[in-house]
Amino acid sequence: MTWLPKKVSRKVGLQPGSLIHIGEQKVERTRINLINYGATEYHEREVAFVEECFHFRAPETVTWIDITGLHDTSVIEKVGTQFKIHPLMLEDILNTGLRPKVEFFEHYILISMKMLYYNNAEDEIISEQVSMVFGKDFVITFQEREGDVFNPVRERIKKNVPRTRLLGPDYLVYSLMDAVVDQYFLVLERIGEKIEDLEDSLVEKPGPESLQTIHDLKRGLLYIRRAAYPLREAVGNLQLHESPLVNEFTYFYLRDLQDHAVQVADTVETFREMASGLLDIYLSGISHRMNEIMKVLTMIATIFIPLGFLAGVYGMNFDTSISPLNMPELEMKFGYIIFWMISISTALGMIWYFRKKHWL
Amino acid sequence: MTWLPKKVSRKVGLQPGSLIHIGEQKVERTRINLINYGATEYHEREVAFVEECFHFRAPETVTWIDITGLHDTSVIEKVGTQFKIHPLMLEDILNTGLRPKVEFFEHYILISMKMLYYNNAEDEIISEQVSMVFGKDFVITFQEREGDVFNPVRERIKKNVPRTRLLGPDYLVYSLMDAVVDQYFLVLERIGEKIEDLEDSLVEKPGPESLQTIHDLKRGLLYIRRAAYPLREAVGNLQLHESPLVNEFTYFYLRDLQDHAVQVADTVETFREMASGLLDIYLSGISHRMNEIMKVLTMIATIFIPLGFLAGVYGMNFDTSISPLNMPELEMKFGYIIFWMISISTALGMIWYFRKKHWL
Amino acid sequence: MTWLPKKVSRKVGLQPGSLIHIGEQKVERTRINLINYGATEYHEREVAFVEECFHFRAPETVTWIDITGLHDTSVIEKVGTQFKIHPLMLEDILNTGLRPKVEFFEHYILISMKMLYYNNAEDEIISEQVSMVFGKDFVITFQEREGDVFNPVRERIKKNVPRTRLLGPDYLVYSLMDAVVDQYFLVLERIGEKIEDLEDSLVEKPGPESLQTIHDLKRGLLYIRRAAYPLREAVGNLQLHESPLVNEFTYFYLRDLQDHAVQVADTVETFREMASGLLDIYLSGISHRMNEIMKVLTMIATIFIPLGFLAGVYGMNFDTSISPLNMPELEMKFGYIIFWMISISTALGMIWYFRKKHWL
Amino acid sequence: MTWLPKKVSRKVGLQPGSLIHIGEQKVERTRINLINYGATEYHEREVAFVEECFHFRAPETVTWIDITGLHDTSVIEKVGTQFKIHPLMLEDILNTGLRPKVEFFEHYILISMKMLYYNNAEDEIISEQVSMVFGKDFVITFQEREGDVFNPVRERIKKNVPRTRLLGPDYLVYSLMDAVVDQYFLVLERIGEKIEDLEDSLVEKPGPESLQTIHDLKRGLLYIRRAAYPLREAVGNLQLHESPLVNEFTYFYLRDLQDHAVQVADTVETFREMASGLLDIYLSGISHRMNEIMKVLTMIATIFIPLGFLAGVYGMNFDTSISPLNMPELEMKFGYIIFWMISISTALGMIWYFRKKHWL
Amino acid sequence: MTWLPKKVSRKVGLQPGSLIHIGEQKVERTRINLINYGATEYHEREVAFVEECFHFRAPETVTWIDITGLHDTSVIEKVGTQFKIHPLMLEDILNTGLRPKVEFFEHYILISMKMLYYNNAEDEIISEQVSMVFGKDFVITFQEREGDVFNPVRERIKKNVPRTRLLGPDYLVYSLMDAVVDQYFLVLERIGEKIEDLEDSLVEKPGPESLQTIHDLKRGLLYIRRAAYPLREAVGNLQLHESPLVNEFTYFYLRDLQDHAVQVADTVETFREMASGLLDIYLSGISHRMNEIMKVLTMIATIFIPLGFLAGVYGMNFDTSISPLNMPELEMKFGYIIFWMISISTALGMIWYFRKKHWL
Repeated sequence: MTWLPKKVSRKVGLQPGSLIHIGEQKVERTRINLINYGATEYHEREVAFVEECFHFRAPETVTWIDITGLHDTSVIEKVGTQFKIHPLMLEDILNTGLRPKVEFFEHYILISMKMLYYNNAEDEIISEQVSMVFGKDFVITFQEREGDVFNPVRERIKKNVPRTRLLGPDYLVYSLMDAVVDQYFLVLERIGEKIEDLEDSLVEKPGPESLQTIHDLKRGLLYIRRAAYPLREAVGNLQLHESPLVNEFTYFYLRDLQDHAVQVADTVETFREMASGLLDIYLSGISHRMNEIMKVLTMIATIFIPLGFLAGVYGMNFDTSISPLNMPELEMKFGYIIFWMISISTALGMIWYFRKKHWL
Repeated sequence: MTWLPKKVSRKVGLQPGSLIHIGEQKVERTRINLINYGATEYHEREVAFVEECFHFRAPETVTWIDITGLHDTSVIEKVGTQFKIHPLMLEDILNTGLRPKVEFFEHYILISMKMLYYNNAEDEIISEQVSMVFGKDFVITFQEREGDVFNPVRERIKKNVPRTRLLGPDYLVYSLMDAVVDQYFLVLERIGEKIEDLEDSLVEKPGPESLQTIHDLKRGLLYIRRAAYPLREAVGNLQLHESPLVNEFTYFYLRDLQDHAVQVADTVETFREMASGLLDIYLSGISHRMNEIMKVLTMIATIFIPLGFLAGVYGMNFDTSISPLNMPELEMKFGYIIFWMISISTALGMIWYFRKKHWL
Repeated sequence: MTWLPKKVSRKVGLQPGSLIHIGEQKVERTRINLINYGATEYHEREVAFVEECFHFRAPETVTWIDITGLHDTSVIEKVGTQFKIHPLMLEDILNTGLRPKVEFFEHYILISMKMLYYNNAEDEIISEQVSMVFGKDFVITFQEREGDVFNPVRERIKKNVPRTRLLGPDYLVYSLMDAVVDQYFLVLERIGEKIEDLEDSLVEKPGPESLQTIHDLKRGLLYIRRAAYPLREAVGNLQLHESPLVNEFTYFYLRDLQDHAVQVADTVETFREMASGLLDIYLSGISHRMNEIMKVLTMIATIFIPLGFLAGVYGMNFDTSISPLNMPELEMKFGYIIFWMISISTALGMIWYFRKKHWL
Repeated sequence: MTWLPKKVSRKVGLQPGSLIHIGEQKVERTRINLINYGATEYHEREVAFVEECFHFRAPETVTWIDITGLHDTSVIEKVGTQFKIHPLMLEDILNTGLRPKVEFFEHYILISMKMLYYNNAEDEIISEQVSMVFGKDFVITFQEREGDVFNPVRERIKKNVPRTRLLGPDYLVYSLMDAVVDQYFLVLERIGEKIEDLEDSLVEKPGPESLQTIHDLKRGLLYIRRAAYPLREAVGNLQLHESPLVNEFTYFYLRDLQDHAVQVADTVETFREMASGLLDIYLSGISHRMNEIMKVLTMIATIFIPLGFLAGVYGMNFDTSISPLNMPELEMKFGYIIFWMISISTALGMIWYFRKKHWL
Repeated sequence: MTWLPKKVSRKVGLQPGSLIHIGEQKVERTRINLINYGATEYHEREVAFVEECFHFRAPETVTWIDITGLHDTSVIEKVGTQFKIHPLMLEDILNTGLRPKVEFFEHYILISMKMLYYNNAEDEIISEQVSMVFGKDFVITFQEREGDVFNPVRERIKKNVPRTRLLGPDYLVYSLMDAVVDQYFLVLERIGEKIEDLEDSLVEKPGPESLQTIHDLKRGLLYIRRAAYPLREAVGNLQLHESPLVNEFTYFYLRDLQDHAVQVADTVETFREMASGLLDIYLSGISHRMNEIMKVLTMIATIFIPLGFLAGVYGMNFDTSISPLNMPELEMKFGYIIFWMISISTALGMIWYFRKKHWL
């Protein structure tokens, strides 16, 4: 769930640019999927060795190599050598704790971002690093685990939906980024529902499990924010930096993507404030219940402790035969009746007093 | 009430630029209202098919097409084709969860904003997305539901109030935006009254329903802020971007509108701080009442528990006949009187002590 | 006290630039005061009709028209026509909920700001809108209510204090603004005293009325901030915008005024933090008192409830004649003495324990 | 301790530039100390009248006039006339509530800053305004009270430490500013110690006096911040503004001074956060103790109140002779023993329960 | 652990540029280690006197002098003279309370940063100042204590790992900085683990020691932030300032380092928010437990205090022989049975009531 620093220790002391996979291994074996398409052609297959992809590169087609699983650094290294990617960039692709960013080079651009899904079974947010490198005629994507987020894009290329095949790698990359950002909205949609559920349940029955939910919510929002803010920044950089690798035409789409990234960030902020508001409700709910409990205790004690004292008085064994001053009430004809009348009227007086003070 | 991400799921995986209405359907059928006016002419009618409007376009008149209801995407599509609006912009018009913004094109400008009303019946803020597209000779407005916010503007055009008819689409758009922003002030006016009511009621009788009101207030302010901040930004962009579609003359009015948007944002901030202040009052009110309750309990217990013990002592059955050391008080002549004197003076001493400690 | 949106409803739907007074009427009738002065001449009188002022305009003198009371819009309109002030600006002058600002035009500058006084009788901050329009040879000031803030400036002109008469309308406007800002310091001085009083009283006797005072304080500071921040900005704009209506010489004074505005804003921030600190003290004071109360209750209960049980035991009526096992203590010679010794030593033990735990 | 607005009232209504001392008089009489030095000469003495200093001005020497005590405005006025200092600047020198700042003029620069010391006797921070005016051949310093902060600088000039005498007034001013900023570090050092002391004492014995200390600490930090932030800004301005009065050589030292000012501001922020952390500890310490107290009360009450009831039952006087159903226990042989066994086992059961719940 | 102002007092009053070591002495004697390397040569040894290093300087080799221990200022002074380092810079190297920064000079650059380790034995963060000065052909590093952070870099040079020997001092400095920043990640990794541990333990058994841990955590994060933010800034400056001492090639690596510094700062922020969240959980955990305790007390008291009163009533000694009105219940056949039935049904009623109120 987190991409907080973990297992960094494995890398400390190595030369910068050393290829080490930082993060857990999330798939059993590296899967390489190749799609090569142009205005008129379309070719898709899974390859066993990444070298099989290289000869597909041609100026008039877009070669999209989709690599799933980062633990086999030799694959990454071969790709790096073939496409002349800087070793520090390969290191970044392998470091799954990386902050989303964009790096510009003369013949390629690297985009690194976080993919977020909501795992309904475990009720938690899952994150994964997605890196994309693209140049004049190729796109290479690196994912940590199997997933179907890129499938709709693949489908659109396959079906030759207008625009998709004619446009270059930059538009493909935009489409993939757009697919990733759409997932953010799904996660936020889910969180929005949880907030509304929580609002209702807090009113009905606040308990420590609500607190846990609020805490999980806040933590989840913290993670999304950690992904969304740098993403917004990265898309902004992509727009500002006038790279020849990005077409005039695509800039317009990037602006739209930027709007989405801003909206994600905005919504995260709003949700964070709402979660804080829920915490306030929870805390003052606890205080309020405490007041209610104390009122009950105080009313019972205030009514019965004095009466208990009175009953105790008439249970005393002062010797009435020695002096008529000793507990003459005990020998009065209506003594017991009067005792009850005092008791009941005291109790009623108390209840009236509590009512006046709005305790009842 | 919210435009938090909802039903986004419907759109995930589609190609960017696909026309899908995101949001609830709020009117039964799409209503299209046409106003065509110029220095000397005025023409208004409701049309059944949007195509009827298109032939009204003329250089010397302003054609205002007001479309209410977004679920019929074919209408939007026809408008888009006629006025050559980019598919991504049409997508934005249909996405009612959009963040307010302005987009500039060579021959038109798109403005998207939130309209806010206060629904007194339900005691809640209602929001709706309003999009406006305008060019050299036309204005198209898209609303989600029926409403009379634009009526005063319509009336002014009809009555040929000075300035309104002579000026172009940019001034009409400004007038409509101004009408929308005026609604913000009405909502804030209502919230201001609620805050004042709350301040009074918190002093008199704080309860969990006050907390709920504060929470609703904070949430409402969160929504207004989500609408007002990007609006301020959007109006700012409209001013800065020197589009030939906006007259020199209109810029001055836009500056005024900008002032209003800034004031809305300012007031929201002030109200938010006031709502936080109310929460503080509520919480310390709860604590204070707890103190009061505890004082009552403590006073009663402190006075009567020791006395109860004393009464218990003289209810013991030690055998006085065995030894004169066993409970000689019971056989004293003034034993009972002394018991009461001790009891009453202890009670009075306690009361004096509580008074000294400012508990009474 | 507030200039939160109020009675805005009156204006919604009107054409922008319509002259409507927004706010309460604070004086019975509009009073117009005219001062016309130059290097050698000085003329002051109250006029009944604003038209009487207009013929005083002359290039070598400064004509200062001071209008008190905004409800008579016809006066404002006449002034607007005479001095060619834009209708939107007149609307701003009449809208007493306006955010302080400066607007630059070719032949005049509008400055709108808030005047603050401390009403000692009611113990509240009073605010009023002051607008100033000045050009090459005139200054027009608009106030909501009668007041003597401008009197010292008037006096200085009358007495021909060096500099005042020779300098132009810009210096007069600076002097008036300086007089207004000086009032802010007086209000802050008063608030500073209240904070110090509160600090002392919170230590001595915290109560719900302290909370109310803190709340009022925070609210007051919120209002001052709402006036001071935009003012700082407005004075900054006045400095940056190189208007030919402002002399080189005056800029230096404006920088000084800017320093003052910054200091007001700074002090407001400091006071706000101090008020938050007071709230913390108050809240933890309440918690502390609760602890004290609970300690008293707990000590009394802990000492006497067990003893009460013991006394209860020896008040039981088990039949001692049936078996020597039944309550033999009652027939012991020193039974009662031992009972008291146990009771007293238990009580002393408890007290020792509480002392060790620092409860006493 | 504060330089919050005080006695501003004295000045309201006066013409800008009027010389009035705002603040308390802190020394009995104004003391004027003159140091005139150059590469080869050094002259120091206290003068009675400021005019005595003026003829020392010479192009090849630096004339440093150190004035202590601001209440005698005639001295300030004479200095102003001699060195052609703008009246508004003289007003600033006299206004001890001024925000630290730098003002640039053609032939002189004014620097106004706050000096802070820690008064160990009173355990409080003392602040004082120090203003410095310097030109090509002179430095004039204005202090509110006697102090020895500038002595080390004086000593270095006297002893002709390398560099000090050869460099101009700008380096002297830098040295004096450096001496002032060093005092800030001393004050922060003292506050750091107090924070550490407090951390220890909060763990051992939290009480209302800890709260007072935290409050004082926060307030003190607020004051330091009010001095340090504008100072940082002022030193920054001094660096950026390329005045011919400041040598290339000195700029480097100013950068160093700037670093120090930034570090002061940083440390203040860190200390503020630590003070907030202490408050959190204090508050949750109170809550924790309350829990402890309540546990004691609840345990005692839970054990003895039911037992008390039981004892009460067997103290009832139902007539056993009427029916064998009436309190047969009283006539059982082992009644009393069984009573005690029930009592003790109930008590032990409760204790076991509390232990399980981690209350004991 | 801290580099808050300490022992600054030692320096106050000295001339700027005086060499005084500020901070504790952390090693017994100053150790000087020399590495001289070029494309083909490598020379390493520990020297007793720093002068031995100076003749190794040669244009084609890099001379790296690593000095551990700052208390012997004469060593620093000799280095300063030999490499013509400005006295203020030497002062900065010796002042271990310095804020991380970069200073540019014509023939050298000074970098000052904080090294952080986690001392597992003491469970605390240890910080140390590291300064680096480098020019065309030399690198000098100053450390406070012995450590092995630089060893991997040393090893890489020794083993002639590609790139390391061919590149100049700027790349060596980059490698050292990278090694330092890697340590930050290790510390954050450790803190991340502590936060997760705390989250678990807070749910299981919250206690005052959790609060202490949270406080220590927050404090530790405060320190890391104090190191990381200025570091980020410093690396940024190093990149922006186009010094001829830094190769084009190295800039790329600096950008990578900058990314790491930003990520450290980001993670610190995230951890700080998580720590605040933990505090919220802790505080509401305390409140919740209080509620639980109060419920127990209230239930016991509410059930048994009224019953105790009832038992007390039938322990009263009203004389039944005087009047049949006096306590006739005592002489009823089923009196005692009825008493128990009332008692038990009251208790059951209360329990039912508590269940309905969700107290049980």
